[in-house]
Amino acid sequence: MLLTRKIEFSASHACRNPQLSEAENQALYGADANPHGHGHNYVLEVTLEGDADPVTGMVVDLKEVKGILEREVVEPMDHRHLNREVSPFDTVVPTTENLAVEIWRRLAPRFAEGPASLRSIRLYETEDLFVEYEGR
Amino acid sequence: MLLTRKIEFSASHACRNPQLSEAENQALYGADANPHGHGHNYVLEVTLEGDADPVTGMVVDLKEVKGILEREVVEPMDHRHLNREVSPFDTVVPTTENLAVEIWRRLAPRFAEGPASLRSIRLYETEDLFVEYEGR
Amino acid sequence: MLLTRKIEFSASHACRNPQLSEAENQALYGADANPHGHGHNYVLEVTLEGDADPVTGMVVDLKEVKGILEREVVEPMDHRHLNREVSPFDTVVPTTENLAVEIWRRLAPRFAEGPASLRSIRLYETEDLFVEYEGR
Amino acid sequence: MLLTRKIEFSASHACRNPQLSEAENQALYGADANPHGHGHNYVLEVTLEGDADPVTGMVVDLKEVKGILEREVVEPMDHRHLNREVSPFDTVVPTTENLAVEIWRRLAPRFAEGPASLRSIRLYETEDLFVEYEGR
Amino acid sequence: MLLTRKIEFSASHACRNPQLSEAENQALYGADANPHGHGHNYVLEVTLEGDADPVTGMVVDLKEVKGILEREVVEPMDHRHLNREVSPFDTVVPTTENLAVEIWRRLAPRFAEGPASLRSIRLYETEDLFVEYEGR
Amino acid sequence: MLLTRKIEFSASHACRNPQLSEAENQALYGADANPHGHGHNYVLEVTLEGDADPVTGMVVDLKEVKGILEREVVEPMDHRHLNREVSPFDTVVPTTENLAVEIWRRLAPRFAEGPASLRSIRLYETEDLFVEYEGR
Repeated sequence: MLLTRKIEFSASHACRNPQLSEAENQALYGADANPHGHGHNYVLEVTLEGDADPVTGMVVDLKEVKGILEREVVEPMDHRHLNREVSPFDTVVPTTENLAVEIWRRLAPRFAEGPASLRSIRLYETEDLFVEYEGR
Repeated sequence: MLLTRKIEFSASHACRNPQLSEAENQALYGADANPHGHGHNYVLEVTLEGDADPVTGMVVDLKEVKGILEREVVEPMDHRHLNREVSPFDTVVPTTENLAVEIWRRLAPRFAEGPASLRSIRLYETEDLFVEYEGR
Repeated sequence: MLLTRKIEFSASHACRNPQLSEAENQALYGADANPHGHGHNYVLEVTLEGDADPVTGMVVDLKEVKGILEREVVEPMDHRHLNREVSPFDTVVPTTENLAVEIWRRLAPRFAEGPASLRSIRLYETEDLFVEYEGR
Repeated sequence: MLLTRKIEFSASHACRNPQLSEAENQALYGADANPHGHGHNYVLEVTLEGDADPVTGMVVDLKEVKGILEREVVEPMDHRHLNREVSPFDTVVPTTENLAVEIWRRLAPRFAEGPASLRSIRLYETEDLFVEYEGR
Repeated sequence: MLLTRKIEFSASHACRNPQLSEAENQALYGADANPHGHGHNYVLEVTLEGDADPVTGMVVDLKEVKGILEREVVEPMDHRHLNREVSPFDTVVPTTENLAVEIWRRLAPRFAEGPASLRSIRLYETEDLFVEYEGR
Repeated sequence: MLLTRKIEFSASHACRNPQLSEAENQALYGADANPHGHGHNYVLEVTLEGDADPVTGMVVDLKEVKGILEREVVEPMDHRHLNREVSPFDTVVPTTENLAVEIWRRLAPRFAEGPASLRSIRLYETEDLFVEYEGR
């Protein structure tokens, strides 16, 4: 059984690779390359996999899940400028793809010992664009 | 090909295991354990799998699907207090997980003889929390 | 200028007037009259009216608004059975209309001394049904 | 990693098979069989699969994806009557299922040479009904 | 107190004035002028004004409202081509504006004798475009 | 009759008044005061008032409205850091309130000569917080 919890956070980012020239960044990222950054209300869906406990009827204690998401994602990323304040985005381009990988990297160990494992995450940059990642 | 039909129903539930003490129920379920119950506008997505018929272009007759969902889910559960009026929730804790299992148990036989089989269901308790179940 | 803050709470209610017969309640409220109650994810929009402060650029301190809504609405009503646990719904039928009036009655005094006054509230029982109330 | 881009288009369709009698069409499709057609705001989610490029952090250039979706779906189908103006729906019944197959047929070759391949599409006819197709 | 009920219907329309030339229609309406028509999932919000009855707690009997909306709007307009099947759109251009006026014209008399009067309607053609009308 | 067009743009902002101390900014704006800025997917609803033209059935030419919104709001604000790149937010705190006032100031003259006048704007910072402004 899969259980998904959705959270939101608001952050700024600029899509620029410091190893590339200004023209290359413009060609690759267009308006996203603006170095001052722009922002999004990111929506994150975190999907856990496990069996419902026969006594509690729960896959996982949702209060614990909420705590993990708060500590690992909301606290470090909400109301932040990703490039300037959140590692590793001083050197890694914070595209939605790379942001999903980083969120996975932070969350997966927190669910490694059960009772439910991290199955996938879905990250919406806007309503019209999202990525899904299952680790590798 | 997968085809998904979404329906809604409003119901009350209380998350309490009568085999546990009041303190244990509070610790496990928090405010959900309130014995008077509270309620949700549940949203259910039912996903069927099959091939589009070459003549009709349809995986399944949607009027029949609607009838099955009405009879098996909406009629018995809508505007009900799950713990008090819907079997087996007098003895089984109606968490979203257990409610999804029960809905699956009711729906799967209705689609067992085709033309489309029940592939999965997704049940939203709120916009921010949902479970997915594929039977077992 | 109007500023609106949206919150949600989950509650049970039964629409029955104890002064009426069972048949009258059924005729008036249909399935809503089920005495065990059913539930909703209520959505409340609270609209305040005021001028943006020239120094802060804010109509009102949103942290204070959030605190008021938590204390006056979420804490007493969330995860509750309105008829059985929330005054005056032991004697007043908790229709969406009456619930909006009660929420107004609780909120209006909290905003009476400014800097922004309560202008209106909108209460959704479901996505397809809502009421708006401006006091009287 | 999966990346999904959502677009919308508005079109008319009538669900009728010209090989069937009027009575058969009515029995199969109900109001959908009205020969004048009716319409929907279709929502299409296109899911691509690939790895994030280590330099750009992108699975695919979204500007190119947008161009492909414009040319293959929006331009030929938006503000059109599918049965009368969009091939092959002069002879194929434009059910949501068949429309998804046709959109897949148009899109898959455009993503055949990378860097990301077409993984699945989801097509909403209304908020309550959608199909998913992964080709075959 | 205002009470709003939301319904949906799917219809086709073409925005063309038969008194104008093809070029004038194209200039005015663009792709909307396509004579075959295109379609939308229209969303209609109907707002009634009245006092909550002190006994029932209701502004109006929602079952009666639903019946009126079914008879006056859904039955004649759902799954229809407005220009070809719904009066007066054989001669009146079915813009969202004119469609709202016609819906008002049909609904207002049904609420003229109370207990609640028609206050306004809001008609969405898409999520991004809607009109509001209060009669005149 | 009122006609509303919705658009979106993504921008960064920091809520800080340079005339105040760091401690005062923190006390007033909390996490919003982070000087690096954070971001939102802003949603703007622009409401125009006018009569439907008897020939065209339109309150206003939507293509012109779209052009005005693109030039006055999307181009200067989308993918921008409001404090650093959009006047007057180098000296005015870009709260949602002040941003709504500035958008009104930019839009109102563009609709001053008809055929429809600017009636109000609604600006969502998130789904749960929005302001409405009607000029003064």
